[in-house]
Amino acid sequence: MLARYLPILDWGRSYTRQALSNDMIAAVIVTIMLIPQSLAYALLAGLPPEMGLYASIAPIILYAIFGTSRALAVGPVAVVSLMTAAAIGEIAEAGTAGYAIAALTLAGLSGAILLAMGVFKLGFLANFLSHPVIAGFITASGVIIAASQLKHILGVNASGHNLLELLESLWHHLPETNLYTLVIGVLATGFLFWVRKGLKPALRKLGLSAGMADVAAKTGPVAAVVVTTAAVWFFGLDARGVAIVGEVPQSLPPLTVPSFDLDLVTSLMVPALLISVIGFVESISVAQTLAAKKRQRIDPDQELIGLGAANMGAAFTGGFPVTGGFSRSVVNYDAGAETPAAGAYTAVGLAVAALLLTPLIFFLPKATLAATIIVAVLSLVDFAILKRTWTYSKADFTAVAATIGLTLAMGVEVGVSAGVILSIALYLYKTSRPHIAEVGLIPGAQHFRNIKRFDVLTHPEVVTLRVDESLYFANARFLEDYILNRVAGDARLKHVVLMCTAVNEVDMSALESLEAINQRLKSMGIKLHLSKVKGPVMDRLKRAHFLDELTGNVYLSQYEAMMDLGPVVGENAPKAAE
Amino acid sequence: MLARYLPILDWGRSYTRQALSNDMIAAVIVTIMLIPQSLAYALLAGLPPEMGLYASIAPIILYAIFGTSRALAVGPVAVVSLMTAAAIGEIAEAGTAGYAIAALTLAGLSGAILLAMGVFKLGFLANFLSHPVIAGFITASGVIIAASQLKHILGVNASGHNLLELLESLWHHLPETNLYTLVIGVLATGFLFWVRKGLKPALRKLGLSAGMADVAAKTGPVAAVVVTTAAVWFFGLDARGVAIVGEVPQSLPPLTVPSFDLDLVTSLMVPALLISVIGFVESISVAQTLAAKKRQRIDPDQELIGLGAANMGAAFTGGFPVTGGFSRSVVNYDAGAETPAAGAYTAVGLAVAALLLTPLIFFLPKATLAATIIVAVLSLVDFAILKRTWTYSKADFTAVAATIGLTLAMGVEVGVSAGVILSIALYLYKTSRPHIAEVGLIPGAQHFRNIKRFDVLTHPEVVTLRVDESLYFANARFLEDYILNRVAGDARLKHVVLMCTAVNEVDMSALESLEAINQRLKSMGIKLHLSKVKGPVMDRLKRAHFLDELTGNVYLSQYEAMMDLGPVVGENAPKAAE
Repeated sequence: MLARYLPILDWGRSYTRQALSNDMIAAVIVTIMLIPQSLAYALLAGLPPEMGLYASIAPIILYAIFGTSRALAVGPVAVVSLMTAAAIGEIAEAGTAGYAIAALTLAGLSGAILLAMGVFKLGFLANFLSHPVIAGFITASGVIIAASQLKHILGVNASGHNLLELLESLWHHLPETNLYTLVIGVLATGFLFWVRKGLKPALRKLGLSAGMADVAAKTGPVAAVVVTTAAVWFFGLDARGVAIVGEVPQSLPPLTVPSFDLDLVTSLMVPALLISVIGFVESISVAQTLAAKKRQRIDPDQELIGLGAANMGAAFTGGFPVTGGFSRSVVNYDAGAETPAAGAYTAVGLAVAALLLTPLIFFLPKATLAATIIVAVLSLVDFAILKRTWTYSKADFTAVAATIGLTLAMGVEVGVSAGVILSIALYLYKTSRPHIAEVGLIPGAQHFRNIKRFDVLTHPEVVTLRVDESLYFANARFLEDYILNRVAGDARLKHVVLMCTAVNEVDMSALESLEAINQRLKSMGIKLHLSKVKGPVMDRLKRAHFLDELTGNVYLSQYEAMMDLGPVVGENAPKAAE
Repeated sequence: MLARYLPILDWGRSYTRQALSNDMIAAVIVTIMLIPQSLAYALLAGLPPEMGLYASIAPIILYAIFGTSRALAVGPVAVVSLMTAAAIGEIAEAGTAGYAIAALTLAGLSGAILLAMGVFKLGFLANFLSHPVIAGFITASGVIIAASQLKHILGVNASGHNLLELLESLWHHLPETNLYTLVIGVLATGFLFWVRKGLKPALRKLGLSAGMADVAAKTGPVAAVVVTTAAVWFFGLDARGVAIVGEVPQSLPPLTVPSFDLDLVTSLMVPALLISVIGFVESISVAQTLAAKKRQRIDPDQELIGLGAANMGAAFTGGFPVTGGFSRSVVNYDAGAETPAAGAYTAVGLAVAALLLTPLIFFLPKATLAATIIVAVLSLVDFAILKRTWTYSKADFTAVAATIGLTLAMGVEVGVSAGVILSIALYLYKTSRPHIAEVGLIPGAQHFRNIKRFDVLTHPEVVTLRVDESLYFANARFLEDYILNRVAGDARLKHVVLMCTAVNEVDMSALESLEAINQRLKSMGIKLHLSKVKGPVMDRLKRAHFLDELTGNVYLSQYEAMMDLGPVVGENAPKAAE
């Protein structure tokens, strides 16, 4: 019981010296990678840089205790940081104390929501975010994030929560561009792109393994940080208008308290819910991908508890909303992390950095951090999802196109909400007009297929309809109309067979429609039969006494129905059988 | 083309002398019935009595031109009048000019919504109101309406839009009860109940046909109106505190203009939408019930246009929202109405009443009108729907119980919205955790059923899973988990067959899950096969190149799959076949 809620009791018991050494090596690499990333995502969220470090310390340790993934690395990530900025930007001015407190509160709310979802096993709710909607949302968010960082590359002030606002504001401030900042920003961005595309092949040529080359390439941002910081210091560029990080307190994560102000909590509720769900979906897909490689299992409900604890930790130690990140988790995995202890060692490394190294980043230009963000998020951008869904399904395409379009035009909250609502609405619309096939017997076999697609045998007095959907309130009337229209023109008909292979459910509305169909067919002298009714549906129809009223029979198989109601004949050779 | 939008061109062309005489007789009976009813529903809506008459004149004529039902009688009805009172009570004080203008505006908006739904063929949207939700809503509305009329029976002031508020207010004002009013109200109510229950059998004993006895019983309210009005006049009870209708202008329906004030229109939008949908659903079920008896067809999209025109008519001629009423339509049908012309004659009758008879109702006590409302709506109350749904389906029960509870506790708008949302949410929840059955061959036949319900043949190296649901984003991950869990414990397995009889759709998310399942099974040395894939699903899988990646085969029938993968064996006699 305890082990269910504390996975640490499971892997902790068999922790070996070998695992310790592997976890330590992974932790060193991830720590080096996380320092610039944490600072950068704090910048993206509009918060002071140290909050990025703090958000990576307590949450990592708490996830290591409560989470089920062995490789997931928790901390600030791009999309969630953007959503944080969008949510609290509505409430307070960036840079004020109120803004920071709103960020803590958002993390606390998000933690509470995740914990509640975990305890009440509501993880399935995340399934209502379809894959294409997530892909579209992440793509659009990547574009917005990259655009939002252009101001740091140009060294100007600009703001806006959607692409149009951002571009307009940038255009307006373009004349104020600071040349020194622009040079640093462009060089850093170019260097980081090269690290990503060119360094890895170069290292592999030098004999490094693919995994290690990947890991080494991920530390590129540290080199950019070191070089540009040194350049600003040496040439005194801060005096020439290059924005720098400036003074960062030397401190372990402080104890903080989120606000319990009812107005604030109420206005952050919807953003917190969206951040929780998006963060959970992003995190669990990373965790499951990595777990599958080692045949490990992820428990979604326990993951909610792990992420909830991590966010609670962020709220009380000066952080902001966190979740499992893709690139850092992959680095952690590739660097050989075996247990969540690797995360705890990373936290120690970051705590040391927060305590000792912050004076060194005084001259770090914001343009460098912006460059690391831009390069990281552009790898998330994948407009090919539009083409893939267009080929496969117009409904999926509509949902993904709306998600991308609305996220870009109206911001993250509108975009993802619209994507979810639209994909549910499209699904409901489809099920409300089910595909109904008229079927006949495949000659020489015992199975029945669509008369429009196969050359099958039918009988002139019998029509067999296969309804390709569960029967429920949204399509009950459609079925009534369909059957009565089909029957209206055919005077020879004596039997209608509903083949129920695809009917997984008959709700009360559909039952009333079936009763109406049965009555109306009866008054026309036509019998209604059912075939291949599934167990659970049959139980329910019996309970409602529908079978007592049914004018015809219920057949176990469609073949039995056909044999009983009239031996099949070729379509071109009708005869008055039975 | 023109006849599609003007059904009058269809029946009008073959209008006979016989039809004329039948329609005239029906019109006289319906007119007599409608006079007290129209006054009463105006009272329920909080409007002056003449608006009830006006709302029954132009709308009836417009419906006769545009509607498709031969027997439907349009006008103010109980539930819609209650919803009108709830909606405009939020905006203006009853009795003020603003209140009446809001009612006109609500009718205009409702008309515009109905017309738009008709033109864009959105009638299917009404299907998302499930039968149990409607039944629950009407039951709860009936209770609220009856409670809201008690104040007129007691002769006190009371108000409230839900049951609790109403009862509390009544309790508070109980000491102010007017004894004369109470006597009139109780006698009228008792008389009308007797007319409904006792008069009909009595008339049948006197030799009237069942239909005619029914019709005669429906004119009971007129008798109550005449007697109580005379009593008030004769004994001068109005001076003793009995509330009377008072002066009603003698006039044909006036030309009125609804407000186009943006604030007013915005705040009435949601109520207008709910009134439109509820009114449409109520009306079309009456129309279809009556049409089925004579093998006539109702066109739902044209019905929307008919009702939209009727509400537009109400907005411009001093009325309020209207729809097809159940009891008046049944009376119209039973009295022999053959065409919508009967409605037009009724309108003439009511116009004459509005012009000439209004001085006669000066002394009509409001308690009598309240009695007619109470007796009419209590016949709508049917709490048995709770028991029926409880036996049949807990999901339907939950939706209906929530609808009744929330309508009583929080009013009509919250109640019906919650019912719709809850029934959709429950449906989505069910489809997100589909029933998955492991199936085997029925001995001696070629069909496959659940191994838990039937004594079937299986093979130890093959597991066949029948997923009883379409595969889409909400259940894609569930399927992944299910299959991997099922496979994990069974070392002998070499083949997993997904039997797709009930899979009507595979969306992009589910496709990605199938690809993941295929890959993971492959890494375990297990092949994934599909059987009985439906045509449309197959087309799509081909387009996405899933079949190229699939490790196994696609079989037309499950029997073929079984024959190919290993001849079936009894469950207790496993052998290493293939």
